[in-house]
Amino acid sequence: MMQASRDAFLECTSSYEAAQTVLFGAPYDSTTSFRPGARFGPRAIRAESFGLESFSPYQDRDLTDYKIFDAGDLELPFGDPVPVLEQIETATGTILDDGKLPLMLGGEHLITLGAMRAVTKRYPDVAIIHFDAHADLRAEYLGETLTHAGVMRQCAALGAEVFQFGIRSGDREELRWGRDHVTTRMFDFAGLPELVSRLSGRNVYVTVDLDVLDPSVFPGTGTPEPGGVSFAALLDACLALRGLSVVGLDVVELAPMLDPSGVSTAVAGKIVRELLLAFAR
Amino acid sequence: MMQASRDAFLECTSSYEAAQTVLFGAPYDSTTSFRPGARFGPRAIRAESFGLESFSPYQDRDLTDYKIFDAGDLELPFGDPVPVLEQIETATGTILDDGKLPLMLGGEHLITLGAMRAVTKRYPDVAIIHFDAHADLRAEYLGETLTHAGVMRQCAALGAEVFQFGIRSGDREELRWGRDHVTTRMFDFAGLPELVSRLSGRNVYVTVDLDVLDPSVFPGTGTPEPGGVSFAALLDACLALRGLSVVGLDVVELAPMLDPSGVSTAVAGKIVRELLLAFAR
Amino acid sequence: MMQASRDAFLECTSSYEAAQTVLFGAPYDSTTSFRPGARFGPRAIRAESFGLESFSPYQDRDLTDYKIFDAGDLELPFGDPVPVLEQIETATGTILDDGKLPLMLGGEHLITLGAMRAVTKRYPDVAIIHFDAHADLRAEYLGETLTHAGVMRQCAALGAEVFQFGIRSGDREELRWGRDHVTTRMFDFAGLPELVSRLSGRNVYVTVDLDVLDPSVFPGTGTPEPGGVSFAALLDACLALRGLSVVGLDVVELAPMLDPSGVSTAVAGKIVRELLLAFAR
Amino acid sequence: MMQASRDAFLECTSSYEAAQTVLFGAPYDSTTSFRPGARFGPRAIRAESFGLESFSPYQDRDLTDYKIFDAGDLELPFGDPVPVLEQIETATGTILDDGKLPLMLGGEHLITLGAMRAVTKRYPDVAIIHFDAHADLRAEYLGETLTHAGVMRQCAALGAEVFQFGIRSGDREELRWGRDHVTTRMFDFAGLPELVSRLSGRNVYVTVDLDVLDPSVFPGTGTPEPGGVSFAALLDACLALRGLSVVGLDVVELAPMLDPSGVSTAVAGKIVRELLLAFAR
Amino acid sequence: MMQASRDAFLECTSSYEAAQTVLFGAPYDSTTSFRPGARFGPRAIRAESFGLESFSPYQDRDLTDYKIFDAGDLELPFGDPVPVLEQIETATGTILDDGKLPLMLGGEHLITLGAMRAVTKRYPDVAIIHFDAHADLRAEYLGETLTHAGVMRQCAALGAEVFQFGIRSGDREELRWGRDHVTTRMFDFAGLPELVSRLSGRNVYVTVDLDVLDPSVFPGTGTPEPGGVSFAALLDACLALRGLSVVGLDVVELAPMLDPSGVSTAVAGKIVRELLLAFAR
Amino acid sequence: MMQASRDAFLECTSSYEAAQTVLFGAPYDSTTSFRPGARFGPRAIRAESFGLESFSPYQDRDLTDYKIFDAGDLELPFGDPVPVLEQIETATGTILDDGKLPLMLGGEHLITLGAMRAVTKRYPDVAIIHFDAHADLRAEYLGETLTHAGVMRQCAALGAEVFQFGIRSGDREELRWGRDHVTTRMFDFAGLPELVSRLSGRNVYVTVDLDVLDPSVFPGTGTPEPGGVSFAALLDACLALRGLSVVGLDVVELAPMLDPSGVSTAVAGKIVRELLLAFAR
Repeated sequence: MMQASRDAFLECTSSYEAAQTVLFGAPYDSTTSFRPGARFGPRAIRAESFGLESFSPYQDRDLTDYKIFDAGDLELPFGDPVPVLEQIETATGTILDDGKLPLMLGGEHLITLGAMRAVTKRYPDVAIIHFDAHADLRAEYLGETLTHAGVMRQCAALGAEVFQFGIRSGDREELRWGRDHVTTRMFDFAGLPELVSRLSGRNVYVTVDLDVLDPSVFPGTGTPEPGGVSFAALLDACLALRGLSVVGLDVVELAPMLDPSGVSTAVAGKIVRELLLAFAR
Repeated sequence: MMQASRDAFLECTSSYEAAQTVLFGAPYDSTTSFRPGARFGPRAIRAESFGLESFSPYQDRDLTDYKIFDAGDLELPFGDPVPVLEQIETATGTILDDGKLPLMLGGEHLITLGAMRAVTKRYPDVAIIHFDAHADLRAEYLGETLTHAGVMRQCAALGAEVFQFGIRSGDREELRWGRDHVTTRMFDFAGLPELVSRLSGRNVYVTVDLDVLDPSVFPGTGTPEPGGVSFAALLDACLALRGLSVVGLDVVELAPMLDPSGVSTAVAGKIVRELLLAFAR
Repeated sequence: MMQASRDAFLECTSSYEAAQTVLFGAPYDSTTSFRPGARFGPRAIRAESFGLESFSPYQDRDLTDYKIFDAGDLELPFGDPVPVLEQIETATGTILDDGKLPLMLGGEHLITLGAMRAVTKRYPDVAIIHFDAHADLRAEYLGETLTHAGVMRQCAALGAEVFQFGIRSGDREELRWGRDHVTTRMFDFAGLPELVSRLSGRNVYVTVDLDVLDPSVFPGTGTPEPGGVSFAALLDACLALRGLSVVGLDVVELAPMLDPSGVSTAVAGKIVRELLLAFAR
Repeated sequence: MMQASRDAFLECTSSYEAAQTVLFGAPYDSTTSFRPGARFGPRAIRAESFGLESFSPYQDRDLTDYKIFDAGDLELPFGDPVPVLEQIETATGTILDDGKLPLMLGGEHLITLGAMRAVTKRYPDVAIIHFDAHADLRAEYLGETLTHAGVMRQCAALGAEVFQFGIRSGDREELRWGRDHVTTRMFDFAGLPELVSRLSGRNVYVTVDLDVLDPSVFPGTGTPEPGGVSFAALLDACLALRGLSVVGLDVVELAPMLDPSGVSTAVAGKIVRELLLAFAR
Repeated sequence: MMQASRDAFLECTSSYEAAQTVLFGAPYDSTTSFRPGARFGPRAIRAESFGLESFSPYQDRDLTDYKIFDAGDLELPFGDPVPVLEQIETATGTILDDGKLPLMLGGEHLITLGAMRAVTKRYPDVAIIHFDAHADLRAEYLGETLTHAGVMRQCAALGAEVFQFGIRSGDREELRWGRDHVTTRMFDFAGLPELVSRLSGRNVYVTVDLDVLDPSVFPGTGTPEPGGVSFAALLDACLALRGLSVVGLDVVELAPMLDPSGVSTAVAGKIVRELLLAFAR
Repeated sequence: MMQASRDAFLECTSSYEAAQTVLFGAPYDSTTSFRPGARFGPRAIRAESFGLESFSPYQDRDLTDYKIFDAGDLELPFGDPVPVLEQIETATGTILDDGKLPLMLGGEHLITLGAMRAVTKRYPDVAIIHFDAHADLRAEYLGETLTHAGVMRQCAALGAEVFQFGIRSGDREELRWGRDHVTTRMFDFAGLPELVSRLSGRNVYVTVDLDVLDPSVFPGTGTPEPGGVSFAALLDACLALRGLSVVGLDVVELAPMLDPSGVSTAVAGKIVRELLLAFAR
């Protein structure tokens, strides 16, 4: 009789069965070392998507033209990351096995490891394109190995080839390790078009840590790093990936309560919209 | 395949058909004269209900024992209140005609008028029990008659008998008018048990303007009035109404953005829980 | 005996009679569809102007050199926009008839329609230069025609020729309509100098929706749209208009409570200062 | 032609000449030792008075029945308190000499010393009734004698008899000094009615440091002290003073930016309204 | 040469060796299920203690009269609670073995389990006095047993006798379990003096979850529960414990970022001061 | 036994004796004319440095490679600036006389005068490189000469040669005075490399008023001035100074409470880190 309010991200109201693309949230932030709150990221992105249009003037496409299902958030436990990563791996694996494209909303960056476990089992040759302020290559942090500060090192250990852009923070040791094991572009996105050409035909996973943006653009994140890229630069970088064979994506590290103006959430939502329009099947 | 996140108020996930009680939001605040934002009340109450238990130690009851449907928010236009009140009247009327109990979440207080139009057509003898800091009895405000500042006068004009409690603000003229046309208890809830006895068997509508609470308890509201009642006093007053033949309820005037601590939303959610447990059929 | 505190915008303390330029506020935001609060814009701009200098190093001019009257805010009702637009039309018309230049502070963008009704009656050939993130060209929004989302369509219906700059949001239909009926420059101010040359001698109204700015610069607005212009770009665009025959201006959509840092209000005040210095007679 | 917006406290728009009561602000907070911001108190109280009624149901009186002039704020320098206190003394003295009642809005508590210098010169027998959380009896603080932490000791040195209520904080030495030199009621207002009887016919100055309130009621203050009185208790205490021969009053220590909910400002405004209604001539 | 700024809680600057009482922080909040941020509690309590006096008018004692060492915060990992609890147990055990009294600052409530493991090994007969809004008696929460929601059940499993006060939230099952295994006083502190008499001579651990306070008094906490006790009631309850043989204490669940007014931190600091003055040896 | 938490800026934990560089705070803001709070700057910079790495990818250096002592904050009185400037002069003089490099954290900009008094007595030929939005060249402000608004004029009066960059605000008179007495580059850093060459071998003091940054990057400051430089521009300017014979530095005007996102503090900390790495001996 009445129209129930929906909390889906804008127009992503297809059914799971019909959808070619599946959005889901992983509201976990227990290993965040500085300022927590990324657990509220997915919920905020959905709620504030009311302020966004479904049409993109950048791509001249509209979300209403695609079959996308917003599956809501996983019900994750708190604290120990082990069962959390298992749940994320299972969810991602199911979506992949059903032939659909997963886009995961974080949550802190460690959740990428859960998705990558599912991806690398199915696409052992996968490359990761990683936009971030932080190298995330630590062997351990305060004695723990499963943390946001080492997630890319863990992904590399799964066999994925890692390509980083926008990095502007790390300790001396992890950056030194990175020089031998991953490909890191410091500060900006130079070389991205060439990489896209080179990865043509290769399976690619895309992980966008929104703190790659300058904190003026995106203050609502746990570890803001001044000196980041502009919104236009990040948007261009995302759109430059079109044409790649993308098998999965995530957008992480929005901590909405840290930005009372709400602007960070608007930024996150717009990046999600553009990624969906760029890669939804 | 996956469990979608739900944005229903806690455990209010019955179907409309099965439900005996229907919760819905009316996210309108266009006539708010001081600080707007009550439009975000219903959404915040639902989202933050995650932090509440479904069990009440005050009533030894649990929401899981009842059939309640959270219908979400009406899609209301902005600005002119005329079409807004029509939509609210229609929705309330449908719920009443289907033999269910409506509980409406505001939104500003003017929305009560829409619900009362539906109620008085079906229960012409209805009495309103009104908890509020403000008398809301103005004939007009800046030239307009349909405003939150005059909603109780409009309800009285529909033929409903108005009983006010907790009032501590008004202009001299409206309070003078009130002495002749409604029953007003200033500052507190004295006399409420006697009224409940007197109204036994009579159809009653209950409207709770949460600003009846002291601003220390409930700062997140458009027009805070120091000198209000405590949470315990409001809870007692709500529970004192049990036994009445309540045909509809509303809880209004939470403006969640005005209280960055989130406590006002928690207060609103707990009052809604207790009202549901007290009156759900 | 004592110096009363004044709430005029900085140094705009001429009398109405002596003034050649009149500043006034239109504190209305009832049709705002997302986050309200623009009603507090004019008050905040005045109060925070204490932190600004009256001298501009960009134009080497000082507000103390001009005769400007800050008339304060109109006392507008809430809710229904019809009487609001009438009051704004009347006030604007009086200022125009008295041979003075009006600069209106919003409030939401719908208020421009009231001013433009007064302007088009007196200057039927008027062109509007419109800086905004949003096209504001909708035929209707949730069933209403008089809304901020359609204000430029309404202005076009008055016969004004519309030139838009900086647009980066709209639905597919309104942008399609716009291609046939208005001149829209997406994303930036390219072509503005040429337009200024072309409009030489023509009467022009200037409306600045401050959300044309990137949300990093101006987070305090109802519907922030990432990807906007910088402060320097907007300032350059405003100064590029010097030499035009400007008959009226407005600056709208500051919602100061949404930016607790106060920076958005400082931005608004500086744009107002520069517009006054550029166009005050 | 147009109605200028006024920034006077509600309805206090008499002329200085006609007024029997004069309200003025002293926006100084340079000796605040913990969290500054009381300088913004007077401005906030005026601006937010829009949300208050001019009618008091507690006293059944209306501000429109009195001749009160809101003179705005003194233009005080920053830093060194010496010239600040001189300006305050001069302003207070003028008002007293003109036979009017001054009510000063703070600002930090040191400003009371300026007013008391004017008062004690004219009424050497004056008693001070002092509501506060802090004893304010220090001989010096970080080497300075003119500070908010010692203002009552300075007032006592002027010859005024000091009666303190609600005190719940101080260092051991100042409280020991107080036992010999002033009359201090710890924690609450017990004994106030008896004091009022005893002071009948005596000239009295009233200084209300709003931090006497519990921080739940009044968080917006520089040095919040848990364990304070309720709004009702403070209001009763203020009303208990009626009948005294009050020659001046002040209300100090609202720091509005520290309470983003705005509730502290509403509390301050309501206390000011009630004091005006209680003592305006 | 220069005086280094100290971040110790006020006047707790004894050496470890000389101290009879040791304060330390456990900045962990990874199992927080609703709103995180308690990790910042200890740091905020220290920093804001600058606004407090070291003298208590409630107990007529001064912290400068005692030998207390503020040891700072443990360097805890994030995520998995197992190593965190081990570190806390070790630190607490060392302090106990050195014959000193530990007072731990949280952090979330799970940290109490670490301290209690050390305590029960040394004092197997220990009783816990537990002030809290939440029963914290769950067997598991989202599949995990080591969470803040079950900490008291875990403590009971260590053999400690649990006495709860102020409880007003829980699910039906945990409260039922509680009736058979612990002693719970709902809503307030009734019966506390009798319990203190009964526990005379018995070793007692005291855990104060600050959310036992009403959210009006203490909004800065992860899971605010309206309907709590006043500051005066909690202070009285703390002081009522004097005379008990207290072997350890903790004060938990301040999440300072959730209360931008800073008042919650002031409340926490004052409770810590009073507990230190009541129990420091 | 336990590791005490330290509040030193990251890794600046050398002893005073061993250190070649000494960091100290001057938490004074009593002459701030608009929005106070810079007193909390030093404390916030230290506390939030936990979120920063000690390694800089811009300079490929690490703070752990240097001997730096964070001396904490001076204990300054409030109000009158005279004793404050004396304390700062004494502290700076001691550090200089001990052959170490001082880096002072503000606080408001007036504190630079205290440091410069010590510097000019020891290095009479010193030049000041001054990055700021405001010219700070006023002869007096509201009757006072010792204010943040005139600090550079006071420094010039000590005989120092002043070179300003990034200036975009001032009154007409002070800017006119500046043209004759100091060297001012408006709006940006053009000409800085040439100046650095010219000052080779000359003793130089560097004062960075962080409000030279655009408010989008650095909203947490008392007087935000839209139209400022980017973080990258300021960082480049700081690094361009390497090679100069710098005898002292300061970084001023962070008011952390004005930016609830915390980003301004992160910006300040990163600039301090880079200055330490650039100039630490």
